[in-house]
Amino acid sequence: MFTIGERINGMFKQVGEAMINRDKKFIQDLALKQVNAGADALDISLGPKIKDGAEDAMVWAVQTIQEVTDKPLAIDTTRAKVMEAALSNAKNKTIINSAMATKEKLDVYIPMAVKYNASVIGLTMTEKGIPTDLSGRTEAAMQIIASAMEGGLSTDEIYIDPIILPVNVTQETPKNVMEVIKECKLMADPAPKTIVGLSNVSQGTSERELINRIFLVMAISYGLDAAILDVNDNALMDAMITAELLLNKNIYCDSFLQAYRKK
Amino acid sequence: MFTIGERINGMFKQVGEAMINRDKKFIQDLALKQVNAGADALDISLGPKIKDGAEDAMVWAVQTIQEVTDKPLAIDTTRAKVMEAALSNAKNKTIINSAMATKEKLDVYIPMAVKYNASVIGLTMTEKGIPTDLSGRTEAAMQIIASAMEGGLSTDEIYIDPIILPVNVTQETPKNVMEVIKECKLMADPAPKTIVGLSNVSQGTSERELINRIFLVMAISYGLDAAILDVNDNALMDAMITAELLLNKNIYCDSFLQAYRKK
Repeated sequence: MFTIGERINGMFKQVGEAMINRDKKFIQDLALKQVNAGADALDISLGPKIKDGAEDAMVWAVQTIQEVTDKPLAIDTTRAKVMEAALSNAKNKTIINSAMATKEKLDVYIPMAVKYNASVIGLTMTEKGIPTDLSGRTEAAMQIIASAMEGGLSTDEIYIDPIILPVNVTQETPKNVMEVIKECKLMADPAPKTIVGLSNVSQGTSERELINRIFLVMAISYGLDAAILDVNDNALMDAMITAELLLNKNIYCDSFLQAYRKK
Repeated sequence: MFTIGERINGMFKQVGEAMINRDKKFIQDLALKQVNAGADALDISLGPKIKDGAEDAMVWAVQTIQEVTDKPLAIDTTRAKVMEAALSNAKNKTIINSAMATKEKLDVYIPMAVKYNASVIGLTMTEKGIPTDLSGRTEAAMQIIASAMEGGLSTDEIYIDPIILPVNVTQETPKNVMEVIKECKLMADPAPKTIVGLSNVSQGTSERELINRIFLVMAISYGLDAAILDVNDNALMDAMITAELLLNKNIYCDSFLQAYRKK
């Protein structure tokens, strides 16, 4: 599993303030805290408060984080100019987070990924919204993959995100998402990767960590490749490591939890 | 999920002694402790120490437990005479635990199930042992289902047990077991049920409860119907309830864990 730390997100009050105040130490500490907990990459989202000056703020965040880690950065914005500013200032691998499955968006982000050697998280949603059924989601996934092929982006640079929704809002979604994860693997060669923004499954519920943990295990058993999640949630990471052990992705030893973390 | 409490098993020292000493209170308390924690049925195994007088001991155990609960009993013995003695003394639904996938065993246990209106746990193993690959396990499952059909036992009275082995012994087994669970559903109409003896997956490992919990969630996501497990392991039951919630089998409410337990 490729883990992308979710915490550098301006939706969290303290992070949002640190972005506005250009508090380098706060952001760098948060980056290192996640890297030390095993994050393979870090998500960066400015949050809703920064509107003017978003390009500068994102470039600052990228440069600030790059001073302390070489991990790939997932640039989390809906604005193409902010995305390109970040990509053009990144030293290391980047992930475009994200592109909707519409021609308009894919025509912007697929060429941008090719230009900057980035990966793309493709959301299975269109201008009509998030499909409520399995076939709508797989159709959107195929649209994203077709665009990558046409645009000359290797299909394994695509992360299909089937968009998990809060289980208290739509209880049929988790199963659909699991099925999309499985089906995506058959859609192209090399197979696209799959990803979820995990915490969304438990938004507004009373048992957030438990629901996150159990859904992650289920999604891993269906072949999930990556997740944006809280890498500092130890029980979540234990669950992830154990799920991968049971799928024979890591070799068993009595200290398998520690062994994974050391790696 | 149909949960079968695993604790009335003579392999646990105190239980074995209670069976030998005919300690009615100990066995009845253990039965009630599991029923109160949500067990849908109770497994009864005499354990290795009782050889002579096993029929009497099993009949005593069945009668003792029936005095305090009407839950179905899973009669866990390899001896056909002990099995029949238990079945003929049971007032309520029984489950034959278990029959190997050989003509010799199925010719005994399928007719016995028909006679006593019992279900049968069919193990995907033959006289050659436990198949190491997926196709060996599905072949054995088909043998069991064919025997049920020939013998006039409804296929939904069969619980296919793909035999989970300790993950520290064979790491390829969990994935194979999950695939068998999925495939079994397509083998007959009505579909046979599937079951695992959960604790076996973690035998000899350093993280027993964690491994049990994560494997149960993965198996549930592949369609597992039943498990013999420790219903008094609260974290395990929370994981199971949450997995079923995410598969839309229970309706979400903020107190979904308590709501399930009250039911």
